[in-house]
Amino acid sequence: MTKKSWTLIDTDRKVHHDAISLGVNDTEISGSAVHFRRLRGGLRDGVDSLEVDNGKLRTVLLPTRGMGVWKAWLDDWEIGWKSPVRGPVHPKFVPIGDPTGLGWLDGFDELLCRCGLSSNGAPDFNQQGRLTWPLHGRIANLPAHMLEVECDREEGQIAVRGVVDECRFHFLKLRLTSTWLTRAGELGFRIIDEVTNLSGTHGEMELLYHINLGEPLLEPGARIIAPVRTMAPRDAHAAESLEQWETFPPPKPGFAEQVYLFQLQPGEDGRTHALLRNAGGTRGVSVSFPVAQLPYFIVWKNAVASQDGYVCGLEPAINFPNPRSFEERHGRVRKLLPGETLRFELQFEIHDDAAGVERTERAIYKMQQPLTTTLYRKPRAEWSS
Amino acid sequence: MTKKSWTLIDTDRKVHHDAISLGVNDTEISGSAVHFRRLRGGLRDGVDSLEVDNGKLRTVLLPTRGMGVWKAWLDDWEIGWKSPVRGPVHPKFVPIGDPTGLGWLDGFDELLCRCGLSSNGAPDFNQQGRLTWPLHGRIANLPAHMLEVECDREEGQIAVRGVVDECRFHFLKLRLTSTWLTRAGELGFRIIDEVTNLSGTHGEMELLYHINLGEPLLEPGARIIAPVRTMAPRDAHAAESLEQWETFPPPKPGFAEQVYLFQLQPGEDGRTHALLRNAGGTRGVSVSFPVAQLPYFIVWKNAVASQDGYVCGLEPAINFPNPRSFEERHGRVRKLLPGETLRFELQFEIHDDAAGVERTERAIYKMQQPLTTTLYRKPRAEWSS
Amino acid sequence: MTKKSWTLIDTDRKVHHDAISLGVNDTEISGSAVHFRRLRGGLRDGVDSLEVDNGKLRTVLLPTRGMGVWKAWLDDWEIGWKSPVRGPVHPKFVPIGDPTGLGWLDGFDELLCRCGLSSNGAPDFNQQGRLTWPLHGRIANLPAHMLEVECDREEGQIAVRGVVDECRFHFLKLRLTSTWLTRAGELGFRIIDEVTNLSGTHGEMELLYHINLGEPLLEPGARIIAPVRTMAPRDAHAAESLEQWETFPPPKPGFAEQVYLFQLQPGEDGRTHALLRNAGGTRGVSVSFPVAQLPYFIVWKNAVASQDGYVCGLEPAINFPNPRSFEERHGRVRKLLPGETLRFELQFEIHDDAAGVERTERAIYKMQQPLTTTLYRKPRAEWSS
Repeated sequence: MTKKSWTLIDTDRKVHHDAISLGVNDTEISGSAVHFRRLRGGLRDGVDSLEVDNGKLRTVLLPTRGMGVWKAWLDDWEIGWKSPVRGPVHPKFVPIGDPTGLGWLDGFDELLCRCGLSSNGAPDFNQQGRLTWPLHGRIANLPAHMLEVECDREEGQIAVRGVVDECRFHFLKLRLTSTWLTRAGELGFRIIDEVTNLSGTHGEMELLYHINLGEPLLEPGARIIAPVRTMAPRDAHAAESLEQWETFPPPKPGFAEQVYLFQLQPGEDGRTHALLRNAGGTRGVSVSFPVAQLPYFIVWKNAVASQDGYVCGLEPAINFPNPRSFEERHGRVRKLLPGETLRFELQFEIHDDAAGVERTERAIYKMQQPLTTTLYRKPRAEWSS
Repeated sequence: MTKKSWTLIDTDRKVHHDAISLGVNDTEISGSAVHFRRLRGGLRDGVDSLEVDNGKLRTVLLPTRGMGVWKAWLDDWEIGWKSPVRGPVHPKFVPIGDPTGLGWLDGFDELLCRCGLSSNGAPDFNQQGRLTWPLHGRIANLPAHMLEVECDREEGQIAVRGVVDECRFHFLKLRLTSTWLTRAGELGFRIIDEVTNLSGTHGEMELLYHINLGEPLLEPGARIIAPVRTMAPRDAHAAESLEQWETFPPPKPGFAEQVYLFQLQPGEDGRTHALLRNAGGTRGVSVSFPVAQLPYFIVWKNAVASQDGYVCGLEPAINFPNPRSFEERHGRVRKLLPGETLRFELQFEIHDDAAGVERTERAIYKMQQPLTTTLYRKPRAEWSS
Repeated sequence: MTKKSWTLIDTDRKVHHDAISLGVNDTEISGSAVHFRRLRGGLRDGVDSLEVDNGKLRTVLLPTRGMGVWKAWLDDWEIGWKSPVRGPVHPKFVPIGDPTGLGWLDGFDELLCRCGLSSNGAPDFNQQGRLTWPLHGRIANLPAHMLEVECDREEGQIAVRGVVDECRFHFLKLRLTSTWLTRAGELGFRIIDEVTNLSGTHGEMELLYHINLGEPLLEPGARIIAPVRTMAPRDAHAAESLEQWETFPPPKPGFAEQVYLFQLQPGEDGRTHALLRNAGGTRGVSVSFPVAQLPYFIVWKNAVASQDGYVCGLEPAINFPNPRSFEERHGRVRKLLPGETLRFELQFEIHDDAAGVERTERAIYKMQQPLTTTLYRKPRAEWSS
């Protein structure tokens, strides 16, 4: 037996730990520790937090917020962003159904949160102006009903598996089974998400990984590096700064967000790779994923004042973040057969020196090299509404 | 003294038990047990559950969900249904005010839940298309502020009394005082609900008992037996299967629900009786109630795939589940004088052998016998919108 | 060291006390006691309550409800009102985003609650009829993320400081830092609120203190006394009873609320003062505040039946409680520079004998004396919509 596991939540079996701490003696993985606790007070009251320390990187996962990743710490480097919303926010304080469709913003402060599963993107309204699909959907504000931690001594690997259902009677019934993995000393983590259509009829889904990086990594002159196959600005405002899309501007109070839409070029293994590095190239965070699973990629430049959330989004997705009806018309709402499961993988890597950043840049440029890039100077009618 | 009582919740007196278990030594009722606990994890986080075992039948009540009845168990027979929503769901996860009016569906998984009290039925919208009354109202997502258990040794009876207020300042102020009763070894329970208008002005109410029965009782060929005085299909789709209304079809993915509206014939004591029995007639569940209190009855046939919630609804009511404004126009929104209390009783019986099922069928047929039944082949304009 | 302090909540430092009681030995203030606890059951489930007894007056503050003041007790006199909503209500049960804009009413039962900060007043809708700003805003349903109690032995003063953020990513980012103060034996308390614009861009705010007084202080013939500079009825209905605005009528089932809008005259120190006294002039409650900080004042007469909430509102404010767009057009939405802090002070006094009431009346009449009062007999187009 090289594996040990702990069930922290399992509503079917009436399991829910109040608080549990696992040390090296429990995990049998060098330098590691796991802490499960329920947060109290303010907007976080009632949020379950799962902190996993792999000996180098400490990461906090949020079972109560759809298995999102709150923040990570490498020594004194906090990886994530400083949202003006002081999270993590319990879903009971997030008015998803606010008629404006923007209530989701009240809970938005994670390093990584999923947008979906029934919908994501800008709010959608019917002809009478009534909200039909709220901004970015429900999954980030739904709690896991199953959560377990598995430690594999031989592999030196810690796995966290959470199950979150997004079901509405008479409507969609989707299940997210998320596995988050890290190895002893790994500067990063991997995510394997499976989305299952629990229904006896066909299902539909959208999915976007909202990965948000702020200070100190993000700074004026920080650069986004990705092997672009096709790119278009989302709107006229983004088009204005098209030439500078790769470079992050300094914080500017009142800056209006700029969004760029992509298809990326994969390497030989079918995986593509996108990097955000600081101005000096001494630190970076990158994400890689199979383009067959996540065919689109979005860069979100929100260069507002620091206190308003100076942040860069790197967003692998199966659709663009437009109103759902727009995506449906353009064939980017995914259909699932009854019982069908789709799989999405991504790898999150932290580069804490110039060598690591350079190695990643080189790998990305290599993907790009043989490639003809198509850059649209204006928004594409099929890509943004 | 043959009665003992325990106050589990009383917010006015700052009483709230965390968890309490009563055994035979406490209740002094043979074979009985009572467990009060707070559920943790997933969508059920924070829901108070009250389990009452009368020695034969074990039932879980939900004070946090308007005193609904979650499920019951007779030996290994689970009585209730398998909703795709894994409940019980805490109201904080049920977006009643979702502009679509359908947020109520996110919490729907009980054997018995009340729809009301200010409104129930399909969502209602104003002329601009803005939601005025959400699907099925608020009461099933409001918590009891008073809960007590009373055991009567002499009668061998366990009573659970819960008080739930549905008040909006400037608007309706209604109080539900619900008493749930069972006797030692009884295969069923009784409910006595009192709804009081707490206001100094007149009040209004709607009420429908959504009793939901699924597998294993429900199966292809299961039959609904009721003494019909008047019956009409809700819509053209229900009209198509009018001849087969009594028989439950097999699960069919994507089946569109069929709803039938009734007035039932009472027996000499003024009570009517409706039964759902399995195909072989070896098991059944029936509900009986005074037609003077609950003049309407609805059968809801939702023969979808098992995993989408294959379920039959038997629904005694004071109104039909149409948008509230429609019911108001047709005089089915009940008026209450200041301080007036209305009483609603129903008896829930489980029949676990062919003899019991047959006896119930015969009793129902006897009610029907002298009767001229009026069957409408098409929807009635006064009954459905 | 004459000061001692206790941090009860500080989410940043992961502090949240479950329950704590401080006695005279802790506070070192004669006759005083402080109790912090979390309420359970009903609509109050999860609300943190902070009770401060200064030896004479016992007051309950609600950190979970934007630092509102629930009720106060002087011996057996309960100061507050009997709302038909049995509070305090946890925000998770208050559907602020209800498309009607009226969900706020489900949580309304405090002696003092703040309406704001982004908006207050009647719900506002866009041209399509979709809710843009709900009734009375969000602050009363947002929890403090910092709460501390400070006792100053030398001054004999107990201070409670709470911090509540009202932020929406991409939109307003406002912070309320509220300090509530009382002295040993003081028949009242003071509030010093600071509202800070946390954003790097300009901010906007509205603010109204909804101070609500009911029985036993309120009774037929109870009088409102204030130094009126300008006054107008809110609508035609209020205009009908203009002559009687100072006198409170007996409870009348179905009474439609009457609202009067004011500018008050300050005394030499820039502070104005408004009093509600009972019919016999033996008891009163008054509030005083600088008109430079809170230029408007509203009297709300809700003379409904006792069980529907017979209550008088005394409401110092920076704007009138109209839909926000109306207030904006009339220049009463306050602008804040990036980082700017505005300060609002008010003093709440209880008068428990005829001498105290008379002294207060005289002080108010003295403010009024040199003054030309402008009374509008009809609603002013600039003041109410």
